Amino acid sequence: MSLSFNFARIPHIIFGSGKLANLYSLISQYGNSVLIVVGASSLKKSGKLGEIEKTLGDNNIIYNVIDVKGEPSPSLVDEAAQKYRNSSIDVVVGIGGGSVTDAGKAISAMILKEDSIKNYLEGVGNKIHNGQKIPYIAIPTTSGTGSEATKNAVISEIGNEGYKKSLRHDNLIPDVAIIDPELMKSCPASVTAACGMDAFTQLLESYISSNSNPITDALAYSGMKYMKDALIPACSNKSSDINTRSSMAYGSLISGMTLANAGLGVVHGLASPIGARFRIPHGVVCGTILAEATKMNIKKLKNSSEGMKSLKKYADIGALLSNKPFNTGKSLDENLSNLIKILYNWTEVLNLDKLSNYGISHNDISKIVEKSGLKNNPVNLDKKDMTEILENRL
Amino acid sequence: MSLSFNFARIPHIIFGSGKLANLYSLISQYGNSVLIVVGASSLKKSGKLGEIEKTLGDNNIIYNVIDVKGEPSPSLVDEAAQKYRNSSIDVVVGIGGGSVTDAGKAISAMILKEDSIKNYLEGVGNKIHNGQKIPYIAIPTTSGTGSEATKNAVISEIGNEGYKKSLRHDNLIPDVAIIDPELMKSCPASVTAACGMDAFTQLLESYISSNSNPITDALAYSGMKYMKDALIPACSNKSSDINTRSSMAYGSLISGMTLANAGLGVVHGLASPIGARFRIPHGVVCGTILAEATKMNIKKLKNSSEGMKSLKKYADIGALLSNKPFNTGKSLDENLSNLIKILYNWTEVLNLDKLSNYGISHNDISKIVEKSGLKNNPVNLDKKDMTEILENRL
Repeated sequence: MSLSFNFARIPHIIFGSGKLANLYSLISQYGNSVLIVVGASSLKKSGKLGEIEKTLGDNNIIYNVIDVKGEPSPSLVDEAAQKYRNSSIDVVVGIGGGSVTDAGKAISAMILKEDSIKNYLEGVGNKIHNGQKIPYIAIPTTSGTGSEATKNAVISEIGNEGYKKSLRHDNLIPDVAIIDPELMKSCPASVTAACGMDAFTQLLESYISSNSNPITDALAYSGMKYMKDALIPACSNKSSDINTRSSMAYGSLISGMTLANAGLGVVHGLASPIGARFRIPHGVVCGTILAEATKMNIKKLKNSSEGMKSLKKYADIGALLSNKPFNTGKSLDENLSNLIKILYNWTEVLNLDKLSNYGISHNDISKIVEKSGLKNNPVNLDKKDMTEILENRL
Repeated sequence: MSLSFNFARIPHIIFGSGKLANLYSLISQYGNSVLIVVGASSLKKSGKLGEIEKTLGDNNIIYNVIDVKGEPSPSLVDEAAQKYRNSSIDVVVGIGGGSVTDAGKAISAMILKEDSIKNYLEGVGNKIHNGQKIPYIAIPTTSGTGSEATKNAVISEIGNEGYKKSLRHDNLIPDVAIIDPELMKSCPASVTAACGMDAFTQLLESYISSNSNPITDALAYSGMKYMKDALIPACSNKSSDINTRSSMAYGSLISGMTLANAGLGVVHGLASPIGARFRIPHGVVCGTILAEATKMNIKKLKNSSEGMKSLKKYADIGALLSNKPFNTGKSLDENLSNLIKILYNWTEVLNLDKLSNYGISHNDISKIVEKSGLKNNPVNLDKKDMTEILENRL
């Protein structure tokens, strides 16, 4: 079959240490009234929010600030959209982790609507969002979700009947993404580890996705190349090193671009129902099951008559991670087993929690598996396979 | 120095055999009045324009057609913009080679202005375009300029005082690019060769550009990987093979993305003043001097104390083109000499004209060199070096 794919547009990317300073001239391209969406405390603690507010004031930019605590709920988005619906906001700016980026994205998309975001969430409401929104600038402070480059905002209703569902439209891709690794230097080790494993999972899953294309392949490989030597140092002795944080930020940004265009696999297929039922950080779920899921995928691919293409791609990454990408001496099997070994090692070194630490027990697994999906996993897994992945990380 | 770069947005890309059929539903997302910009004859000869017009009519879309002969001049753009200024055009569609794509881009940008494009051309006028335009869908029919992914339209005034200058703004990046390799199957061998060499030159020059970044590196490498085995077949026995045409179209698309974000080198620095003074296809200029320019760059890099990074990148491509990317047995020098050898071989096999075939003589060279630039060439070349490149291809 000949080459066939779609690739969504990407935001204008401004990447580099100190690039936050571009925010003020960017805002004035849209107008002089800005709504700032920030996380609960980290920006405030570091004094960074104060600096930003002062500079906005000095530049005669009118601003309002919204705090987002945890993952954004429908009611948070609805209340914010209602409050600022008649305030002539020219541009929304989200500065924070993935939850904040998604909250800002959703608010920028709902200010112009009169009803609840619930009506527009996939699998929840029955309305289709038309993409009309206030311009949106995303400024991540963690290297995790890659949400600064995606067209969806994940909205969470926690509880037994809870869900994590997306508001999605091509036009919701942020207009501009400012990636300033300086903002990530104060991110704690545990958050850096969880977010980093989320980003790496997104890169690996989109690389081996059944829906990958040459652009996502090239980008995902590049993202993993930068992340592989930065992940552990960013969580330990190099947490303040700007080159290390730059590599993490680059991998995360790229992971948003590749997941948006190639899709993801079973790790994210399982993470979604787990996240809806338990208060466990998304990156911890992904990180803790990635090695197990990769091992299972490789086992099943080896038993599949059409598995060779995906096995070769997994082997490419095994070679990349073991710093021997050009060593033809290693066989396919050696590279595959190196890949699994290195992912397990990361799980150990980064001290990623097991699922039971968050109250998940044997009894929950069947319900989780029931609600999970395979997304664009390169090989079919049945319920028994998915159960095995989770049981091994309980 | 830590990672620092900008990356402009890219169009929404719809790539694949038969994807032209998406045009009609796309147009109706913008409205029902479309201005179609086409090349002089190829679409008409193949009957494709008739098919498109019929389908537009069947879909109740009002359309007007503009013919573009050769490279677009300021007067062509001005006349078209004036003619349709009060016609409530909802979307402009450019279907053709690089000249047509650029003409459509310029017309979509000038319909909303009241004055001449000359006022907005870099180095010609003194006004800055503000990016306001009619939405624009680009549909290339050659694999050459990559203009479907760039923010500039090259406008040519031919003659002794002639110029090739750009109208440029981030917002002029087409909104959508439909890349349908079926449209390229009837492209003649000589045009395929010239356009293909232009695209390959753009990939190689942006890959080794002093302004490259990890995204352009990953993409340019991917583009060359696809083009290397398709270039010769597309110009000979595989001109109707959809996989071959897909690889060429992919390389060309990518070359637009990488040149827009990494810039180009001395080949394009020389091609610009040559194209302004002589009626020689842009792709022929690039193709005919690429091997010579690469040889010169490598020679100068070897004499430079800071040349190793660029030499390694050139060697990567030498290894890629000789199908031995993973062979560590080859030394840097072997890969570099393979690169030069293969580029010379392409020049021969594709039968690329020498410069004198278009009336360029020894006496013209000093004037060309005088007006040329190095752009983002990885190493400094002086006038003597540039003269040598051109003399060797007279």
